[in-house]
Amino acid sequence: MAQISLDDLNAMDGPGFMRALGDIFEHAPWVAEAVAAARPFRSLAALHDAMTRAVRATDAQTRRALIAGHPDLAGKAARAGTLTAASEAEQSSAGLDRLSEEEFAQFHRLNDAYRSKFGLPFIICVRRHTKDSILRQFERRLQNGVAAETKAALTEVFRIGALRLDQRVEAHDRLKVHGRLSTHVLDTHAGHPAAGVTIELLELPVHGEPRLIAKATTNLDGRSDQPLIGGRPIPIGRYELRFHVGDYFARLGTPQGDPPFLDVVPVQFAVAEPEGHYHVPLLVTPWSYSTYRGS
Amino acid sequence: MAQISLDDLNAMDGPGFMRALGDIFEHAPWVAEAVAAARPFRSLAALHDAMTRAVRATDAQTRRALIAGHPDLAGKAARAGTLTAASEAEQSSAGLDRLSEEEFAQFHRLNDAYRSKFGLPFIICVRRHTKDSILRQFERRLQNGVAAETKAALTEVFRIGALRLDQRVEAHDRLKVHGRLSTHVLDTHAGHPAAGVTIELLELPVHGEPRLIAKATTNLDGRSDQPLIGGRPIPIGRYELRFHVGDYFARLGTPQGDPPFLDVVPVQFAVAEPEGHYHVPLLVTPWSYSTYRGS
Amino acid sequence: MAQISLDDLNAMDGPGFMRALGDIFEHAPWVAEAVAAARPFRSLAALHDAMTRAVRATDAQTRRALIAGHPDLAGKAARAGTLTAASEAEQSSAGLDRLSEEEFAQFHRLNDAYRSKFGLPFIICVRRHTKDSILRQFERRLQNGVAAETKAALTEVFRIGALRLDQRVEAHDRLKVHGRLSTHVLDTHAGHPAAGVTIELLELPVHGEPRLIAKATTNLDGRSDQPLIGGRPIPIGRYELRFHVGDYFARLGTPQGDPPFLDVVPVQFAVAEPEGHYHVPLLVTPWSYSTYRGS
Amino acid sequence: MAQISLDDLNAMDGPGFMRALGDIFEHAPWVAEAVAAARPFRSLAALHDAMTRAVRATDAQTRRALIAGHPDLAGKAARAGTLTAASEAEQSSAGLDRLSEEEFAQFHRLNDAYRSKFGLPFIICVRRHTKDSILRQFERRLQNGVAAETKAALTEVFRIGALRLDQRVEAHDRLKVHGRLSTHVLDTHAGHPAAGVTIELLELPVHGEPRLIAKATTNLDGRSDQPLIGGRPIPIGRYELRFHVGDYFARLGTPQGDPPFLDVVPVQFAVAEPEGHYHVPLLVTPWSYSTYRGS
Repeated sequence: MAQISLDDLNAMDGPGFMRALGDIFEHAPWVAEAVAAARPFRSLAALHDAMTRAVRATDAQTRRALIAGHPDLAGKAARAGTLTAASEAEQSSAGLDRLSEEEFAQFHRLNDAYRSKFGLPFIICVRRHTKDSILRQFERRLQNGVAAETKAALTEVFRIGALRLDQRVEAHDRLKVHGRLSTHVLDTHAGHPAAGVTIELLELPVHGEPRLIAKATTNLDGRSDQPLIGGRPIPIGRYELRFHVGDYFARLGTPQGDPPFLDVVPVQFAVAEPEGHYHVPLLVTPWSYSTYRGS
Repeated sequence: MAQISLDDLNAMDGPGFMRALGDIFEHAPWVAEAVAAARPFRSLAALHDAMTRAVRATDAQTRRALIAGHPDLAGKAARAGTLTAASEAEQSSAGLDRLSEEEFAQFHRLNDAYRSKFGLPFIICVRRHTKDSILRQFERRLQNGVAAETKAALTEVFRIGALRLDQRVEAHDRLKVHGRLSTHVLDTHAGHPAAGVTIELLELPVHGEPRLIAKATTNLDGRSDQPLIGGRPIPIGRYELRFHVGDYFARLGTPQGDPPFLDVVPVQFAVAEPEGHYHVPLLVTPWSYSTYRGS
Repeated sequence: MAQISLDDLNAMDGPGFMRALGDIFEHAPWVAEAVAAARPFRSLAALHDAMTRAVRATDAQTRRALIAGHPDLAGKAARAGTLTAASEAEQSSAGLDRLSEEEFAQFHRLNDAYRSKFGLPFIICVRRHTKDSILRQFERRLQNGVAAETKAALTEVFRIGALRLDQRVEAHDRLKVHGRLSTHVLDTHAGHPAAGVTIELLELPVHGEPRLIAKATTNLDGRSDQPLIGGRPIPIGRYELRFHVGDYFARLGTPQGDPPFLDVVPVQFAVAEPEGHYHVPLLVTPWSYSTYRGS
Repeated sequence: MAQISLDDLNAMDGPGFMRALGDIFEHAPWVAEAVAAARPFRSLAALHDAMTRAVRATDAQTRRALIAGHPDLAGKAARAGTLTAASEAEQSSAGLDRLSEEEFAQFHRLNDAYRSKFGLPFIICVRRHTKDSILRQFERRLQNGVAAETKAALTEVFRIGALRLDQRVEAHDRLKVHGRLSTHVLDTHAGHPAAGVTIELLELPVHGEPRLIAKATTNLDGRSDQPLIGGRPIPIGRYELRFHVGDYFARLGTPQGDPPFLDVVPVQFAVAEPEGHYHVPLLVTPWSYSTYRGS
């Protein structure tokens, strides 16, 4: 669905507003309906705030129905192709549409266990997760009592709504739903930024092969022109940056041994805060390097 | 064959000396014979020196015959089980007895090309190499002219002899045929050596799976009790050290994110000098690390 | 003199233009006169370029007279108070108005030696230098032949003119006459920027006491709100950054020994490129730190 | 007094034993007397242990007299030259014989305050301290209650005795009374130890000028041949290592800016554990360096 401006949303008639935002909360157009009369909203944050307050203002049964309206993760709806468009895109982002038979069976078992304990589908804002962290959250939340788990599920419902809203509506402000993963390479042998270094970013699943998710070449300032991940949450999970410094020093004619002591430098790290800023630079000579979580 | 002391070698009768050192140079007992009368030797270095001078003192044809007496690498003799014991152990050290069909074919092609160009087997001191670096040397030396290649082959013959001699003879001195690969882990978060860190050393072949070649746990001084490689050449090739720092910081209760920002820290590097000392330490906090070729 | 916009300069009558830019080149209003008819200039760079071309287009005698029109450094004119306002401010920036008797005598000797060799005053763009680097340049350039030294002097005349022009004229572009010195502090013990760290920047003269030239406290991003030096050349010379990390870690309650292993961390470095960007950060735990020339 | 071997001590007659060890505890020969009959001692540790047990076995009054037998720090006995030889050498080691009038007055005030509160001289093992840390301990211990302070004083008496005993007696074991301060310099630009680097170690008093206490040049392994401080406690205090890396890189012809970005690298740190091992290395390129408390 195309983006729409906050100004336009504020000016629309009721049916238009419902068409625009009726699906922000899954199968719950009543949330949009509840805030339509409170227009105009001065900011996206104010609109999102109104919607979450509308949900919190309802009774427990309504909130439970809101939760119940979500599909299972990697469930039968996904296989049958009956997900809403938003849900389908979300589940695909974490690779839930590419599960092995074994993983599918694991999700199935967890879904069943969760439903039989809580009588509800397991809800998680999948854009903030990799497959591995979804499974970890799943295991953990299965240990919750009903009250804690209801609260946890609602938090996820709000996160899903915030991401959808931020994608849908253009405004002067943004919701705090995006992280950033960036790097830079400093050549401490020559004392200047390392330009022309190839960098790969891979996701490292617990099982299975690493998956390339971004590739860049450093510019004259030793940075990638764009963040490696930006404008979206960084899925919780493990990653590897691969810095091709052997080729870089070879182009400069810097002595580095034969074969070079360093060639492709792997830096493995985990992301725990999807909305955080992860700056993971490399300070490098042909014989040494440092890396750190910077800012 | 058991070790023998330099003193005993100096005191032996001629046949005993020949039994002890006749096979130091492959199929060339005449080298030992040539130096027997020069006894006593005051050091292993003096003995080795005498043997190499004996080889250099011969005519070109004899030296060529010395080279010709060596078996092909991964050749038919190896498959047929007709290698000398020394050659068999040497070829096995670089994994030449575990080649895939494809690799075997590649060696076969290179052996043929080499023999048809130089009329000799390709000689290399395999204990100083991994399979990958043997193949690289093979390709490079095929480009040599006859004079340069004869010199290169003789250098390898001497290296093989020196290693055999150093293994065979016990003396107050050692030949400079051994390298050392060591590491230590410093916890710069707490300001002391990191004890109890699991470290793995893997060989990284260009093709195929990494191969675990050493494993250690750091002691109270942050070091492994023994060097990861010592008392032998470090084969030229690429390696990965894997430092399990996530477990270490978890045991100490050091805050490190969930999942931890760092967990297993991989450090990949190449060895270019088999007789060198490679000290590759890790200075680490839960949020940063440095590594370098130290001493 | 107040700033004037490039647009206004382009629109002015001749006398107004001369009043505005007649003193950009010391005692040489003819340079401005020579370019007045070439107006309008589209950029400050184009204006500066026209002026330098006007100088280069003249004969050797005129250029020599331009050089001759400059005052001695720390000379009698300075003591007598007969410098142009621009020259006075410039000489003061490098501390030439605060010389000891000994230093004054040294300048006097060098001025005399230079005049007797070249028949001209020694010219240098003092805003790009500390007292120490002026003396060093003085000694070096005294070794020059006439041709090389005339070229060197003219380069300095252009640098002085560029700085004056950039200060005087407001335009959409700036001349490349400014450097930047900045820092940031990263707490690699906690894995985030170090906020609230006091930082001092001192100039380190070869003789005499260090001189405090900037002081800042790091913000939430571990940086100073303003660069420590910006909007002007960084004088060539030696500097010390002093990072008060002991107080910082004490406020956080981070264990650091008694007395703390680190307290005030001094980082000494030299600036060689006054128009360069020097970013000199500190990565620090209570037990370790790194610094480097970054970007 | 000359060293004596533990074996000789074990074999001596009583008067000889008393002559050898009667002054280990200040003005308290009865301590040596108390242990003479327990000979032979198998180790220096066993001898020291016996002596401390002999002191602890006495009544409070005797222990108080033992404490009372010590001279004031920087007191009248020192000025009058009536200290025991051991006390004189000890007080000189911390510079207590080189106090300014102001510092002498400060010690005088503290001595008086301490005597009027506890009726005893203030005892501290001065070889473990700089002047600054003695003053800091003095201020702190003045806050103690009588019981805590008596315990603190006795601890110092034992430390003094242990150091005297370790100096006096030669045995197969040593008491744990010595620290070690060492460094090494690694050139991470070239990937090998930095040889020929001049290193100075200075003590940094709170007031007054830094005092050079050791100077060394790195050997081929990038280390000083001897530890900068060894075979004695490292006085608690602040220090500066000065690494002359600019000269080093200049000799190698390594490009490093003009003037060099780094020249003399100062590393300031405090020692808090006189018997600890402080290894403070420098990893350095012309554009970056790291340092840390290593092992």
